[in-house]
Amino acid sequence: MLPGRTSASAASSPVPKRPRGPIGLDDGVPPAPPPSRRRLVVVGGVAAGLSAALRARRLDPDLDVAVFERTGYCAYSACGLPYLVGGAIADHRALVARTPADLAKEGVTVALRHEVTGIDLAAGRVRVRDLDGGTERSEPFDALLLATGGRARIPFPGMDLPGAFHVRTVEDGLAISAFVTAEAPARAVIAGGGYIGLEMAEALAARGLAVTVVEMLPHVLPLVDGDIAAGVEAELARHGVDVRTATRVEAVEGDGRVRRVVLAGADGGGGDDVLDADLVIVGVGISPDSSLAAECDVPLGVRGAVAVDGGMRTGVEGVWAAGDCAETRHLLHGRPAYVPLGTTANKQGRVAGATIAGRDETFFGVVGTAALKVFDRQVARTGLSELEAGDAGLEAVAATIVHRSRAGYYPGATPLQVKLVAERRSGRLLGAQLAGTEGAPLRVDVVAGALHAGATVADLAAFDLAYAPPFAPVWDPLLIAAREVQRLV
Amino acid sequence: MLPGRTSASAASSPVPKRPRGPIGLDDGVPPAPPPSRRRLVVVGGVAAGLSAALRARRLDPDLDVAVFERTGYCAYSACGLPYLVGGAIADHRALVARTPADLAKEGVTVALRHEVTGIDLAAGRVRVRDLDGGTERSEPFDALLLATGGRARIPFPGMDLPGAFHVRTVEDGLAISAFVTAEAPARAVIAGGGYIGLEMAEALAARGLAVTVVEMLPHVLPLVDGDIAAGVEAELARHGVDVRTATRVEAVEGDGRVRRVVLAGADGGGGDDVLDADLVIVGVGISPDSSLAAECDVPLGVRGAVAVDGGMRTGVEGVWAAGDCAETRHLLHGRPAYVPLGTTANKQGRVAGATIAGRDETFFGVVGTAALKVFDRQVARTGLSELEAGDAGLEAVAATIVHRSRAGYYPGATPLQVKLVAERRSGRLLGAQLAGTEGAPLRVDVVAGALHAGATVADLAAFDLAYAPPFAPVWDPLLIAAREVQRLV
Repeated sequence: MLPGRTSASAASSPVPKRPRGPIGLDDGVPPAPPPSRRRLVVVGGVAAGLSAALRARRLDPDLDVAVFERTGYCAYSACGLPYLVGGAIADHRALVARTPADLAKEGVTVALRHEVTGIDLAAGRVRVRDLDGGTERSEPFDALLLATGGRARIPFPGMDLPGAFHVRTVEDGLAISAFVTAEAPARAVIAGGGYIGLEMAEALAARGLAVTVVEMLPHVLPLVDGDIAAGVEAELARHGVDVRTATRVEAVEGDGRVRRVVLAGADGGGGDDVLDADLVIVGVGISPDSSLAAECDVPLGVRGAVAVDGGMRTGVEGVWAAGDCAETRHLLHGRPAYVPLGTTANKQGRVAGATIAGRDETFFGVVGTAALKVFDRQVARTGLSELEAGDAGLEAVAATIVHRSRAGYYPGATPLQVKLVAERRSGRLLGAQLAGTEGAPLRVDVVAGALHAGATVADLAAFDLAYAPPFAPVWDPLLIAAREVQRLV
Repeated sequence: MLPGRTSASAASSPVPKRPRGPIGLDDGVPPAPPPSRRRLVVVGGVAAGLSAALRARRLDPDLDVAVFERTGYCAYSACGLPYLVGGAIADHRALVARTPADLAKEGVTVALRHEVTGIDLAAGRVRVRDLDGGTERSEPFDALLLATGGRARIPFPGMDLPGAFHVRTVEDGLAISAFVTAEAPARAVIAGGGYIGLEMAEALAARGLAVTVVEMLPHVLPLVDGDIAAGVEAELARHGVDVRTATRVEAVEGDGRVRRVVLAGADGGGGDDVLDADLVIVGVGISPDSSLAAECDVPLGVRGAVAVDGGMRTGVEGVWAAGDCAETRHLLHGRPAYVPLGTTANKQGRVAGATIAGRDETFFGVVGTAALKVFDRQVARTGLSELEAGDAGLEAVAATIVHRSRAGYYPGATPLQVKLVAERRSGRLLGAQLAGTEGAPLRVDVVAGALHAGATVADLAAFDLAYAPPFAPVWDPLLIAAREVQRLV
């Protein structure tokens, strides 16, 4: 057991059978369960929603589980969309881990293209619209899980023009890919230089487009510090991607389709610049889609995400939330945070499913681990960046080293950049950022584990890490970086 | 700071200036230092010896540092020898990190092909033989570091025949490579199926030889359990390497050169079998070369390795030991252990150098991490295997899972085998073994860090590990294995 953890939240009891309220709002054909069974309704059938649905059902086989998903796909990997567009994945069905038919075999009913449009908490019912038929009906629940995910922000006008896309759903990915095939666009502008923006830059470059990435902040990948991002910008340039930092997209313009993008300085001022564009992708990050929760007074927390406890319970009895619509707890500063990622969504969903089924489980939180590939460069981070540590009021020191990924004499050794952030005086590890052509994400995992354990840089420097010439030098780059930052603590 | 650690051993003071005893034994030409400077003599100029020499000199620039190395190379990587023989490394000089000329610039004098043949502790002198000139001389020291390394065991007769080799030194590697080139041997037998044996099997197969590996135990790679070793044996078979387990080499025979190898059952009985062979490699593991220490009553410990404290001090004032000749502390059971590896040697050497220079440092110990590549298969382990846990009197549970190394839809995803060992009831992680085509060693590092921290399998299951389709699935194989073993605890 690592220090500073409580292993159990207060025990909860299984979902009680609710007294059914009157059927409201419509007179559709509710496929209601036998009244003797308790019913879980899940709003959203992707990572968090389905993890919870499957777990709850496995732990409580008497539970009736109904999932409503507004898109035409469930259990899909949004993280795979850039690879679908880029061509590494030929068939979009590969992105779908389970179909409704698969899920039905596990006792989970999924209705695709069904949007939950309202919740009546007192009555224990949700209003569901069939997006194809247009009909609306009311569905009862004893327990409700909000797994509504995130919502792409629409930060500028013109996103209604053909050729302007978000990258959230399988439909988005298919539409972008079809547009590229059908319209043969020559120039793409990507608004936002975060994960999805850079992955889409690579994908569209692979499809032969000239790509410009526009990032409001002083460097791409705001999740890492500038010294690590510099190598990523060089990699983008090496592959012909134009990067405009400290710049924002003010508007997308066209005449029946996208024709150009109007830029401005990050502060909104400065002389406007205009880029010709046939395709625009928005990758500026998401906000929690918590509107359903807000409408029925489920308390919201940080950045408008649904506030939850360790068991993923909201402030309202019988209502849970998980995934990109919900808060998470950041272990480095112990406060709630909004970190919408697939890994977190899956973990939160599993915990929600367990507590819905009456089991005592806790989602301990995140340390902020993330990774991506940008062309031939891997970038990974965990914990707090130097900037974030400062924002959190921590007095931090940081060191960046470059060392070989393998024994120097072994073919294929390449430079790996390692930045470690630590708290001054205590020496507590606060975070790591790695970039190189191999071994970055898994080495970040070593630090992520160390952060969970509350390790110091001296602890990390003593780690007995694997050495074999094809995989690592005798002094792993992590150990060298740990020694370097030890000097500064 | 991780739990259960003391950060400091008892403070030590810098090397005192010894009163010089009479010059004994010989009348060579001692290049003695000015008598006002204290002098460190290091016996052995590879990983531990040179790490210590350089560190001591950096921390105490007034220290005179003399290193005696019996082979013709210092600062070389013995782990690289198979790649020299196999051809991945074209020039043996790539294996040498630093030459005596490089080291001289850092204030460290290295005499190659100089063997320390005796120690007079009372007088503070060592007897040194120049292996080329044949002369012997006496050298004074104030502090002495024994970094004599390991000694290849010679477990059967016939090793004096041309064509029979150990794999310890650069000279060994060059001799094997030259023999293969000059004699074009067709059949090799490798005695011992551990790291070096399997790496040499791959190297010799790459040179076109038909290779048989003979292992006394029931499976190759005794450092992992049988279920993990089975995949390695399959990989060897797939590449045409013949593996004979539960078999030992009884003798090497020939007429002026190696002609055949006589085998026996592991128990020494059974019908003898004879393999034709033109080349024999011994890779049966090493013993500590502690004969110098034993001769002058420096106390020995486990398996005859020099007993040391956390500061790498031996039981005799003014004498340190580090590397393959010394004990180490195993953090999983807290007892001294003999784990001769390059990583440990380097770390111990650094600590020895620091304490020799008067700084307070402690080598915390190892968790038993190791990795190797066998053709296209990576194998890595840390902590205790299921077998070792039982031997240590721990009640252990273990689970082995196979999961994809990347997101299932991402090109190049391959199966990764993960075995986790945990203590029953407490759930404390005890060890991990991984095998696959990618990501095994660095994922073992995550567990190694968790072992340093005393984490449980529940802790590991909660780790916020990196996810990106090209590197890892959304549930990393480590997390899936942790959940699996959690069920058994």
